[in-house]
Amino acid sequence: MGPDPAVAAVRLAVRRVLEELPEGAMVLAACSGGADSLALAGALAFEAPRAGRQAGGVTIDHGLQAGSGERADAVVRTMADLGLDPSGSIAVTVDGTGGPENAAREARYTALDEAAERLGAAAVLLGHTQGDQAETVLLGLARGSGTRSLSGMPAEFRRRSDVLYLRPLLELDRATTRRACKAMGLDPWDDPHNVDPAYARVRVRHEALPVLEKTLGPGVAEALARTAKMLREDADYLEEVAARAFTDLEAPDDGERVALRLDGLKEQPRAIRTRVLRMAALKAGSPAGTLAAVHVDAVERLVTAWRGQRHVDLPGGVRAVRRYGKLLLGRTGEV
Amino acid sequence: MGPDPAVAAVRLAVRRVLEELPEGAMVLAACSGGADSLALAGALAFEAPRAGRQAGGVTIDHGLQAGSGERADAVVRTMADLGLDPSGSIAVTVDGTGGPENAAREARYTALDEAAERLGAAAVLLGHTQGDQAETVLLGLARGSGTRSLSGMPAEFRRRSDVLYLRPLLELDRATTRRACKAMGLDPWDDPHNVDPAYARVRVRHEALPVLEKTLGPGVAEALARTAKMLREDADYLEEVAARAFTDLEAPDDGERVALRLDGLKEQPRAIRTRVLRMAALKAGSPAGTLAAVHVDAVERLVTAWRGQRHVDLPGGVRAVRRYGKLLLGRTGEV
Repeated sequence: MGPDPAVAAVRLAVRRVLEELPEGAMVLAACSGGADSLALAGALAFEAPRAGRQAGGVTIDHGLQAGSGERADAVVRTMADLGLDPSGSIAVTVDGTGGPENAAREARYTALDEAAERLGAAAVLLGHTQGDQAETVLLGLARGSGTRSLSGMPAEFRRRSDVLYLRPLLELDRATTRRACKAMGLDPWDDPHNVDPAYARVRVRHEALPVLEKTLGPGVAEALARTAKMLREDADYLEEVAARAFTDLEAPDDGERVALRLDGLKEQPRAIRTRVLRMAALKAGSPAGTLAAVHVDAVERLVTAWRGQRHVDLPGGVRAVRRYGKLLLGRTGEV
Repeated sequence: MGPDPAVAAVRLAVRRVLEELPEGAMVLAACSGGADSLALAGALAFEAPRAGRQAGGVTIDHGLQAGSGERADAVVRTMADLGLDPSGSIAVTVDGTGGPENAAREARYTALDEAAERLGAAAVLLGHTQGDQAETVLLGLARGSGTRSLSGMPAEFRRRSDVLYLRPLLELDRATTRRACKAMGLDPWDDPHNVDPAYARVRVRHEALPVLEKTLGPGVAEALARTAKMLREDADYLEEVAARAFTDLEAPDDGERVALRLDGLKEQPRAIRTRVLRMAALKAGSPAGTLAAVHVDAVERLVTAWRGQRHVDLPGGVRAVRRYGKLLLGRTGEV
């Protein structure tokens, strides 16, 4: 008799990513103690020796809840019992820049980067599931900023360092990881933050997704996750094309400004032109977090629907103007 | 004192599309008697003479509810009172192919096409609003088939004939059309179908969207509509690039099959390759309605992850195989 189907599914997902990593490589599971990352840790401990890879585990103590240190110790013991070696915890300090969720994420990844580099790990596995992906897409939908904001979390990415982050469980649902934990005799920890409706993600998980399942039919989370994957491929390609177009369209400028040829801009299809204009605004110093589609649209009207507008002001003290066959973007005093 | 702001907004939206049509052209409002299309008819009657265009109105009697003939007569009287000339109703027979909503839509557009051609109309205006667009995006989300299924309704399209359909109200919400009706002294009809939870669209309108507004914050309908517009531009561009790639990659074949060069396919970015493969499957006879992303993915694995798979069967009796450096798609007996 084989393993429980849920255990088999989690192990298969982990095996597939291990096969893509070099033989003998050290691979870390990032484990909070919740069902998703605990199932991930269990599967990694099982698969790594069979695949000729080394496996370790790391948990982050964010220090945001009473008893978080003891929780981290318990997770380390569980990971060590599973056979993950080394297993350890890292305490981080979360300061509040960019909102508490953002600050916690930044602190967590910085600690994971450092741990992976210190241990010479080739990759860190993250336990995000299809449900997390569906929530991310819906949260992106609310921003209404197109393909990229709907493309969810990547299955594979790097941050500042050379460490590769992988999300092997993106096509599995939470019921599977929970069942896998049970079948492996692992006791997941339910983070009270995961039911706190103060978080938009929690409201999406417990209110929005169930209503969407009810109104649109079952399989909505899967459809959202599949959509994210397709839109990510579209966004990657479109941004690559736009980056080439940007290089082609950039004109010499006698100052520090970004200059683009108007005639060439006009000829671009809209999907590319709006991306080129966004890239130009970012290069001129407008901050990615506040530069919105409405700003890019206003700059585009300087190009395609010019009726004598003098300039368009963008976030970050950046201004766009039309001059001598060029679109110029720069600091407000300099254009 | 100017008109009520809601009336001004609907009139401005209509004026903008009238300006794009030839002078003296006949423009029809398609009017169900509901608030959206009634506000549209009122604005068209006001704006057309001022813009030097002619305006008429047409309502469709689907014959699906008791008293629908009397309702249609009442809508015709209202349109005539507004000054739309000609104003008339067309009774259609809805047969049930492809579901009742689909059949009603087909019958309606066929009648509108014929009426527009008979009257020599350049364009038919439709009253769909931002709310309708948001619902369409959510309904497309459930299909999970990527950019195109999320791109909502176009602001401008043609069907089989030369008649141009325009949706001037896609950026206005339903509160605006309702307020505009009230300010214009028009009494909209509330179709009982619009509150019947048997329809997925009604469930999305009355259950899904309010919960999304609650969990993600206000402005979700607007974000969905904005997303649709951006994704439509992306989809248009990507399909254009894919159509060119398809032509480049098509290889001669001694039969009726679609043949594509494998080496060229492999070099394409995934966003383009999957679209080319979908086009090839459609050309080989697989029906658009049942050909899903999962089928295209299986065909793609013949190209990029071939491990000896013999063939992939697609809906409509179409089969894909790899042979002599080519991917062949054709009727099952012929490949």
